Amino acid sequence: MNRLLDKTKTLIEALPYIKAFFGKTIVVKYGGAAMIDPALKVQFSEDIVLMKYVGMNPIIVHGGGPRISQMMKKLGKEPKFIKGIRVTDTETMEIVEMVLAGSLNKEIVALINRQGGKGVGLSGKDGALIQAERVKETGHEMGHVGHVKEIDPQILKTLEGSRFIPVISPIGMDSDGHSYNINADMVAGTVASAVCAEKLIIITDVPGILDGKGRLIPTLSRKEAQRLIKKGTINEGMLPKVSAALSSVEMGVHKVHIIDGRIPHALLLEILTDQGIGTEIIA
Amino acid sequence: MNRLLDKTKTLIEALPYIKAFFGKTIVVKYGGAAMIDPALKVQFSEDIVLMKYVGMNPIIVHGGGPRISQMMKKLGKEPKFIKGIRVTDTETMEIVEMVLAGSLNKEIVALINRQGGKGVGLSGKDGALIQAERVKETGHEMGHVGHVKEIDPQILKTLEGSRFIPVISPIGMDSDGHSYNINADMVAGTVASAVCAEKLIIITDVPGILDGKGRLIPTLSRKEAQRLIKKGTINEGMLPKVSAALSSVEMGVHKVHIIDGRIPHALLLEILTDQGIGTEIIA
Amino acid sequence: MNRLLDKTKTLIEALPYIKAFFGKTIVVKYGGAAMIDPALKVQFSEDIVLMKYVGMNPIIVHGGGPRISQMMKKLGKEPKFIKGIRVTDTETMEIVEMVLAGSLNKEIVALINRQGGKGVGLSGKDGALIQAERVKETGHEMGHVGHVKEIDPQILKTLEGSRFIPVISPIGMDSDGHSYNINADMVAGTVASAVCAEKLIIITDVPGILDGKGRLIPTLSRKEAQRLIKKGTINEGMLPKVSAALSSVEMGVHKVHIIDGRIPHALLLEILTDQGIGTEIIA
Amino acid sequence: MNRLLDKTKTLIEALPYIKAFFGKTIVVKYGGAAMIDPALKVQFSEDIVLMKYVGMNPIIVHGGGPRISQMMKKLGKEPKFIKGIRVTDTETMEIVEMVLAGSLNKEIVALINRQGGKGVGLSGKDGALIQAERVKETGHEMGHVGHVKEIDPQILKTLEGSRFIPVISPIGMDSDGHSYNINADMVAGTVASAVCAEKLIIITDVPGILDGKGRLIPTLSRKEAQRLIKKGTINEGMLPKVSAALSSVEMGVHKVHIIDGRIPHALLLEILTDQGIGTEIIA
Amino acid sequence: MNRLLDKTKTLIEALPYIKAFFGKTIVVKYGGAAMIDPALKVQFSEDIVLMKYVGMNPIIVHGGGPRISQMMKKLGKEPKFIKGIRVTDTETMEIVEMVLAGSLNKEIVALINRQGGKGVGLSGKDGALIQAERVKETGHEMGHVGHVKEIDPQILKTLEGSRFIPVISPIGMDSDGHSYNINADMVAGTVASAVCAEKLIIITDVPGILDGKGRLIPTLSRKEAQRLIKKGTINEGMLPKVSAALSSVEMGVHKVHIIDGRIPHALLLEILTDQGIGTEIIA
Amino acid sequence: MNRLLDKTKTLIEALPYIKAFFGKTIVVKYGGAAMIDPALKVQFSEDIVLMKYVGMNPIIVHGGGPRISQMMKKLGKEPKFIKGIRVTDTETMEIVEMVLAGSLNKEIVALINRQGGKGVGLSGKDGALIQAERVKETGHEMGHVGHVKEIDPQILKTLEGSRFIPVISPIGMDSDGHSYNINADMVAGTVASAVCAEKLIIITDVPGILDGKGRLIPTLSRKEAQRLIKKGTINEGMLPKVSAALSSVEMGVHKVHIIDGRIPHALLLEILTDQGIGTEIIA
Repeated sequence: MNRLLDKTKTLIEALPYIKAFFGKTIVVKYGGAAMIDPALKVQFSEDIVLMKYVGMNPIIVHGGGPRISQMMKKLGKEPKFIKGIRVTDTETMEIVEMVLAGSLNKEIVALINRQGGKGVGLSGKDGALIQAERVKETGHEMGHVGHVKEIDPQILKTLEGSRFIPVISPIGMDSDGHSYNINADMVAGTVASAVCAEKLIIITDVPGILDGKGRLIPTLSRKEAQRLIKKGTINEGMLPKVSAALSSVEMGVHKVHIIDGRIPHALLLEILTDQGIGTEIIA
Repeated sequence: MNRLLDKTKTLIEALPYIKAFFGKTIVVKYGGAAMIDPALKVQFSEDIVLMKYVGMNPIIVHGGGPRISQMMKKLGKEPKFIKGIRVTDTETMEIVEMVLAGSLNKEIVALINRQGGKGVGLSGKDGALIQAERVKETGHEMGHVGHVKEIDPQILKTLEGSRFIPVISPIGMDSDGHSYNINADMVAGTVASAVCAEKLIIITDVPGILDGKGRLIPTLSRKEAQRLIKKGTINEGMLPKVSAALSSVEMGVHKVHIIDGRIPHALLLEILTDQGIGTEIIA
Repeated sequence: MNRLLDKTKTLIEALPYIKAFFGKTIVVKYGGAAMIDPALKVQFSEDIVLMKYVGMNPIIVHGGGPRISQMMKKLGKEPKFIKGIRVTDTETMEIVEMVLAGSLNKEIVALINRQGGKGVGLSGKDGALIQAERVKETGHEMGHVGHVKEIDPQILKTLEGSRFIPVISPIGMDSDGHSYNINADMVAGTVASAVCAEKLIIITDVPGILDGKGRLIPTLSRKEAQRLIKKGTINEGMLPKVSAALSSVEMGVHKVHIIDGRIPHALLLEILTDQGIGTEIIA
Repeated sequence: MNRLLDKTKTLIEALPYIKAFFGKTIVVKYGGAAMIDPALKVQFSEDIVLMKYVGMNPIIVHGGGPRISQMMKKLGKEPKFIKGIRVTDTETMEIVEMVLAGSLNKEIVALINRQGGKGVGLSGKDGALIQAERVKETGHEMGHVGHVKEIDPQILKTLEGSRFIPVISPIGMDSDGHSYNINADMVAGTVASAVCAEKLIIITDVPGILDGKGRLIPTLSRKEAQRLIKKGTINEGMLPKVSAALSSVEMGVHKVHIIDGRIPHALLLEILTDQGIGTEIIA
Repeated sequence: MNRLLDKTKTLIEALPYIKAFFGKTIVVKYGGAAMIDPALKVQFSEDIVLMKYVGMNPIIVHGGGPRISQMMKKLGKEPKFIKGIRVTDTETMEIVEMVLAGSLNKEIVALINRQGGKGVGLSGKDGALIQAERVKETGHEMGHVGHVKEIDPQILKTLEGSRFIPVISPIGMDSDGHSYNINADMVAGTVASAVCAEKLIIITDVPGILDGKGRLIPTLSRKEAQRLIKKGTINEGMLPKVSAALSSVEMGVHKVHIIDGRIPHALLLEILTDQGIGTEIIA
Repeated sequence: MNRLLDKTKTLIEALPYIKAFFGKTIVVKYGGAAMIDPALKVQFSEDIVLMKYVGMNPIIVHGGGPRISQMMKKLGKEPKFIKGIRVTDTETMEIVEMVLAGSLNKEIVALINRQGGKGVGLSGKDGALIQAERVKETGHEMGHVGHVKEIDPQILKTLEGSRFIPVISPIGMDSDGHSYNINADMVAGTVASAVCAEKLIIITDVPGILDGKGRLIPTLSRKEAQRLIKKGTINEGMLPKVSAALSSVEMGVHKVHIIDGRIPHALLLEILTDQGIGTEIIA
């Protein structure tokens, strides 16, 4: 009985957070260990379905780098990266799309469905969600590497209104019908702006953003973040995440959280507790 | 951190119950210690507001015997009971209405509002919710003691659709405009039928229904309940509760739970845990 | 037959007024003799129900001073007033709430229901309709005397859309959960502003506002009213009514009428005839 | 003031009738003196607009025999009747349509609009309201004389939902595109059935149905009406009206009233008074 | 089979135009040969029904000069024109209304219905669509010649939302209830503005607007049109059309097309082909 | 100009077919040459988008056998078939899902989007559309070969109401989370039943069903089809198509058409012409 009473107390303690986020849209960038470790995968999907049931509108954007490289190797192609970005020739693009939209996306949808949610997988082509364009600024021939030109959120609104949970693969199409491989953090950031999300949560494999001495920074203003980038404190893996965070915050998203997906139920911890976890980036 | 992880686990354990009751209407008969003890009162209102936020539609029906007798005494009138039912002359009826609809009802509404819900207090006159008629069967002159003739659930539907939580005082009116004092358990039972509630939960000051040897009966079928009544195992105080339970179950309510309101968060315990608490009466 | 023809002519004469007020919200402050005299009470409720049927949206705010004092005396408490305002200690506040929200409010709802309307009684706690705060300006210890801090009209909109007629008791709650006794004229005035009422009608026991020589003033501009207040022509009983009228008119209500509730069907007379009755206060 | 009080009493006396017909559809066959006499025309339109404002849904079907004959004579054509039915060659049909749908219909719409209503004139072609077919049973060549094959009530529902008042000319079209002149009483009867009208009111130039001795019959059952037809008590002019009444009542209309349109405000008298006027035909 | 393949190719070629006009409102002024020649009449109604089915909202305004003069002559009245405008005494006005709203309007509705559409004929009186006022500027006594004072588009919105096709006769009413004969081009122009039409198409009996040398002008800006009017290049018959076009364009209609209704399916040609036909007037 | 006139005539000839299918749901099984040949692919997507624009609701189910085998070979796995059904071990299932849901599905969505439609790709996991179960009847170990246990059409209804075009990959999931490869013809057939489709169109690489002498059978009743199956006239490739057709027709789909996708615009030809093409199977 005592255990039960503890349970109900916990639920009651969650009430203020449930109230605070009721009806709010929360974009979650899903990636890293949380997408590989079987236990973490189940916990992630439990968190998402609980969020939906208590009245939030979660939207998932997933990455998938390691699985793409695996499949390329199986098909006898050597993955090649320039400044951390995958060189994506046409054949690679086909593999990217197959792995992201065909395997990983449906795996996540299945996970959510097994917890009693109703996931709906989308690539940026579905409902013309992501209009992309080729990245040009680099001096290198990167191929089908793109960035987001525009988001058409209609399909997200349609699904949200019917209790479905959207799961997005970071693939876009340009007006000529070419497909593009887009950084998933950047997709999550622009989607968050386009749907006026309350929060963007980026799930990573690190505790958050660290200062020069390796200590976790709990809260970071936009200005401070820009300063850290200039100083080079932000490492290469974290850079696209912080950039995505900054551009979201600039375009009206209230808060961005960079959290450690290796912690069980990291997502729920972030949303349903006062202190939060990881690093919070604010305007 | 460990405490936090326990928290999230608890929330996740609640998910199946949240799913099971999502969108379901649950009528709660509120009374006894849970309506007197300050801590229990707060816990009750927390439970109700949480239920509303996670997608259930709670409807509260309250009693209030002790407070009526107090006020009568203050006004120099001696409460009189025949077979456990209050003899209700016209002056007493006025006191009943004043205490139930004016004091207790608004107290409960205020409790709910303080937890972030939006309670709306109703007597059976409001929106013509309860059409009553005089109880005739007894040999005694009981005065304004009535029973429910018909429920008009329109006002409940209207409030539910707008995120309000109805709080009902057990007072009815007949077609000639007379007011009636009605047993709150019976009001809860007929309201539960009228709104096709998933569940009726009756909060009492006992652990549930006890068998001849004083042991709690966890589950009771309609037939067994009737047999216990015939045998006289059900005592006088429990009788109207069991009768209300039986008539609800006959009219389509799936389950009735008689629970011990002296347990903190009894309501949440009942709804969000497997074993439930108290006695469950089923069809 | 001639009598019948006269009837139909009367109905046709009412058509322009029905058209003028179709779909409009009209707040009625109900009080005085019209709330005591049995025949006037019936006529009032007939008027309200007719208004609803021909397409207006009446909202009633009632007072209840004399009944509160009666109950206090019955309970052995002596009513005390400072500058016409009831000193309201905690015990008195409980009596106020019981009498207003428990007795008078339900009495009015019952009256309306008996004429075929569907009244729904509300105190300012229901649906968090009236957020109140303690009146501080007086030098005296007034206790639970409050004024309106904010109106949340959602519950009124919800009921109006479903053919219910709201009946409001002038009781508010602050954020700490304390109850307040508020002047009913002021509640009527702020409710009228909050719902963008076409008209506020204040039912009194006098013919209207009188000039220095005791003659009825049919129309009064805001400026003139303020001048009369300064000059002291407005007596103490009329003062809160004129203040409520002025603040309503300032906040966008088109017209306020102060009428004589001792006249049978005063409300209908005011609305359905050209000349109107009593004093009209305009912007 | 006394006159005013009488007024309000009259309005209150109308309340039960307003309640009884609130939201109900009432089909009115408009014809005879009420369509010719200028004062009666105004009174008719006042009645219709009042009905709409107090919550009924009036639908008007008009006739127009005399005006058709006038126009035919102006155009040098001699009107010809067989058994009271106008022989309608193609040229006559054109005149019928022009006079009914072009002149009379718009005249009635204008009358209604001037009283503050919003009439919308329809012939049976508009919205494909009346599918007609040629009357074949007579031995004579009647030309474009038709009866109603089917009513498509969609246009009536559409207009009703937007506060418009439909005014229907008794003209139909068959599947080959031919126009037909249809008896207006029969159109009113079939429209009343198709829209599940509460009442069909047929405005005539006689006091109602008379028995063999010339006395008004206040109420007539279907059976009695059929007996009177067989006995020949119903005269030729009244016959189509009684037939329309009978077939409406058979198809579910609750009551049909045949009233004397020469009485001022006959329509309102019929609806808003207890005794009604004229003859009532019931199932 | 080859013929079939050509067919499908044609349909596919129409797709961009269907997409461009999907959900758009298009006002069509219908007149001239297209309203007289039997084959052209059928083609016009086919075009209108096809437009409705592929997602456009066509609204028709028709003229009818020649038919009015014919009927006047039949009735022994000599048509009289001053500066191309019909002198309209009261008797003439009655004929105008009868012919336009009773004959021509219903003829067009019947045509549309036979193609599977659902036309609904309206004069400017129906739903109080056209509030008119007497034309005063001329030195002559023109009688019931009016212009549009205001359009109340509610009836058009109501019909459009229910898949009906409105067909409007150019007749208006002033606040005193007088009827007016209004130039149909001007009615079409003001209706197009009032409903925020994408396009106004005026069907004439000429190839379009010709320049001084008799050559067709494909596109004309507002400025150029005004210059042509000043220079006198626009002839008297075309003047009201160009005026209607200009005032529409000024009030927000995107484009006005003046097309040759003698070409089979001129309407469809204009909408579903790139080059369009006739003269286009733009802002 | 003549060419233009021919165009408009073609459009007008299409009108009866547009009317017949307006608002109707049509399921299209897409496969064979039409999914490989670049020109046929474009024509197919044009047809689908046109269908959507003229008011039909097309739903696409695609196959993809050859592409799966190609990918398997690239990955060093030899495709194996028993009785024409692919043996699907776990690794093969992953390839099936990747190729169908990741490559082919998105390719079709992109095709539709380029024609101005808004495709949304779905596997049977998305929105829990296809609940599958393992095929057991064969004596062989087939692995992840499943059939449809139940369709949940909610996601289809949601998309259809928002102008999206669903594109379905024939993959299902069972309650344990296993994925299944399902025959696309059977998926198309059960989807058609579940959404009460007007028509199921199966696009093949043959002219239709041939009789024993190799002649095309234009129309086939259910009974005749069953007889042909028994007689062995239906070959192995056609068998699942005819089975899907029969079960659709049994479950309420009006007609099934088996057409030759090698003909340009075969889909449009089938829908917008009288004779249709291929073989029609009816109840």
